Amino acid sequence: MDKKEFALKKHYEWAGKIRIAANAPAKTKADLAVAYTPGVAEPCLAIQKDPSLSYKLTNRHNTVAVITDGSAVLGLGDIGPEAGMPVMEGKCLLFKAFADIDAFPLCIRSKDTDEIVKTVSLLAGSFGGINLEDISAPRCFEIERRLREICDIPVFHDDQHGTAVVVGAALTNALRLVKKEINKVKIVINGAGAAGCAIGAHIAAMGCKNIIYVDRFGALADGDSFENPAHYAVAKCSNPNKERGELSDVICGADVFVCVSAPGVLSEKMVGTMNKDAVVFAMANPTPEIMPEEAKRGGARVVGTGRSDFANQINNVLAFPGIFRGALDARASDINDAMKFAATKAIADIVSDDEICEDYILPDPLDERVVKAVARAVAQAARDSGVAISE
Amino acid sequence: MDKKEFALKKHYEWAGKIRIAANAPAKTKADLAVAYTPGVAEPCLAIQKDPSLSYKLTNRHNTVAVITDGSAVLGLGDIGPEAGMPVMEGKCLLFKAFADIDAFPLCIRSKDTDEIVKTVSLLAGSFGGINLEDISAPRCFEIERRLREICDIPVFHDDQHGTAVVVGAALTNALRLVKKEINKVKIVINGAGAAGCAIGAHIAAMGCKNIIYVDRFGALADGDSFENPAHYAVAKCSNPNKERGELSDVICGADVFVCVSAPGVLSEKMVGTMNKDAVVFAMANPTPEIMPEEAKRGGARVVGTGRSDFANQINNVLAFPGIFRGALDARASDINDAMKFAATKAIADIVSDDEICEDYILPDPLDERVVKAVARAVAQAARDSGVAISE
Repeated sequence: MDKKEFALKKHYEWAGKIRIAANAPAKTKADLAVAYTPGVAEPCLAIQKDPSLSYKLTNRHNTVAVITDGSAVLGLGDIGPEAGMPVMEGKCLLFKAFADIDAFPLCIRSKDTDEIVKTVSLLAGSFGGINLEDISAPRCFEIERRLREICDIPVFHDDQHGTAVVVGAALTNALRLVKKEINKVKIVINGAGAAGCAIGAHIAAMGCKNIIYVDRFGALADGDSFENPAHYAVAKCSNPNKERGELSDVICGADVFVCVSAPGVLSEKMVGTMNKDAVVFAMANPTPEIMPEEAKRGGARVVGTGRSDFANQINNVLAFPGIFRGALDARASDINDAMKFAATKAIADIVSDDEICEDYILPDPLDERVVKAVARAVAQAARDSGVAISE
Repeated sequence: MDKKEFALKKHYEWAGKIRIAANAPAKTKADLAVAYTPGVAEPCLAIQKDPSLSYKLTNRHNTVAVITDGSAVLGLGDIGPEAGMPVMEGKCLLFKAFADIDAFPLCIRSKDTDEIVKTVSLLAGSFGGINLEDISAPRCFEIERRLREICDIPVFHDDQHGTAVVVGAALTNALRLVKKEINKVKIVINGAGAAGCAIGAHIAAMGCKNIIYVDRFGALADGDSFENPAHYAVAKCSNPNKERGELSDVICGADVFVCVSAPGVLSEKMVGTMNKDAVVFAMANPTPEIMPEEAKRGGARVVGTGRSDFANQINNVLAFPGIFRGALDARASDINDAMKFAATKAIADIVSDDEICEDYILPDPLDERVVKAVARAVAQAARDSGVAISE
């Protein structure tokens, strides 16, 4: 049986990767009289008087919704809401296993931005946080922006910001290893969708002055015309030297190449045109844009991929469990930039000066120190930036 | 510490009566490669090809949403969505404890019928069934009706139908005990809200020909004018002799009195005007409309209340766990009248001819035979009535 058949077989056996568990007794009449009627009237009345008590008297303090419309699931594209649910359940499983967060999967049978925003905003009282997942660009930008404005709980599109936080950590340590400063490097990002744009915004805010985005029409530069309206803003803040041309043109002299696109876009020869001590993050899953050994042959010093069977796995699981753990612990009303930078730094700092090397720029996704460090840093950043409601 | 303080204290201790539990391993890289990427792509693709496989490859087959807008919570009224959540969590706890169903609580921050219908219908792909809860009349009627039309999964307003199913069972056995036939008795229902109207519709369909509804303006009769638009239809199908007046007038000669209103509406003297072998179901919680001993002194032979500390507790927990268990087992697309009647009969049949007496017309809510019998009967009725998708 190959790996794909095995995964399908296990999903049939599990028939769901999460369940609900009781957290109160319900065996005797006395139990029911406390957990249900008439006893339950007391916490209801307490919350009516002070709605913030919903964080103390129900599971809201530890509950996150994992929400998709099924429009951009993994690399599979628009497969529909129900078909996205195995990923959402998987995410909920990871939330539980890594951060003891009670996450629940929801799929929305609509791709209309207004309908999705309305639906999620009306449910916000049921949760302590919202994790948006696998929603296609450019709708995902507007949906997240509007929900962050409307909702009194954190709303976080993991495909954008989870990825950006981990790439930020990988970049921090890659530059630490090759001894380059972030404000002096040239970084090319191939793929200007949700993940690519979020990565660019994050590393620009970390101090990078020279980021060039490349999509299938070539390098984005201010003054060009774009199909995707989001690209006007992206172009305005990037490519300061207005470099033109295809990927093979602008990659010349780049210090770092970040790829969130599709297998095969990058060749050994193209890597050869990059600057000395080149860093390549090739994150297409399951097949990277270039295989690590090929990139190394081309001259790359540090290579990261999305895969667990190569060194330097750039995996969102390093970020989202700790970020939400920290946000919930602080009862943050938002997950802001300060919290994301804190997460990036916490992940990078796990790798000590003694350990850091070409094959170890990021902690292992299963390293139990990660979620604790990220949660602590994110909660502290929430407090410092004024979005924490509880201490 | 009194009982109310104790219930509040326990809710603080629990900080949520349900949790999420992992149902798949997530400890090793190999685990993650099956339950998450890249393995999870296989069940996603399988569901994309055949959406009904969401019932096999995710937990949808066993998942029910418990949804409220917080507008009619217990007897507390419109206390708001977050304040309703302790009840919703309690209900989810009972679903788990009684029927091993994975129910998840959701509150909606809107009382607009269209918004509630839209929100719930867009989420239907995430669940195997929808339990509406504590939504005020008359909106609850339209919300349930429209959702049953739109959704491909069962939608069930428990305050209406769960109550009706259990009252139907109590009525069946009370009449069995006093040897009266349902098509010959006069039944007065005090309270013409969601529960009262659903009880009336259910027992009318069971064969009762003479039902009189009474609200605060008196007996409802066809031809009258009503504030509540739902009452025109109710009046048309009830009170065949067009009896007029207050409760104290129309209760004369009644065989059965069903009360879903407020404490104090019924006196010993009024019970005294009822027919021989009178049956009184006084279901206001926690204080019944009349205390059992008072009703007995007035001449009632059988008395039921909502309370666990009196005989004949009329409690929805006898119905909803088994009804949803049966509906999910049969993958029913609806919970129709045939399934509700099957549930009523299954509950009544638990009480044997040897056991039945004035103090035992209903099984104990904790009697483990109930959920099994109800689930089996409901699943069979779903198959017989053509709404079952799986065998």
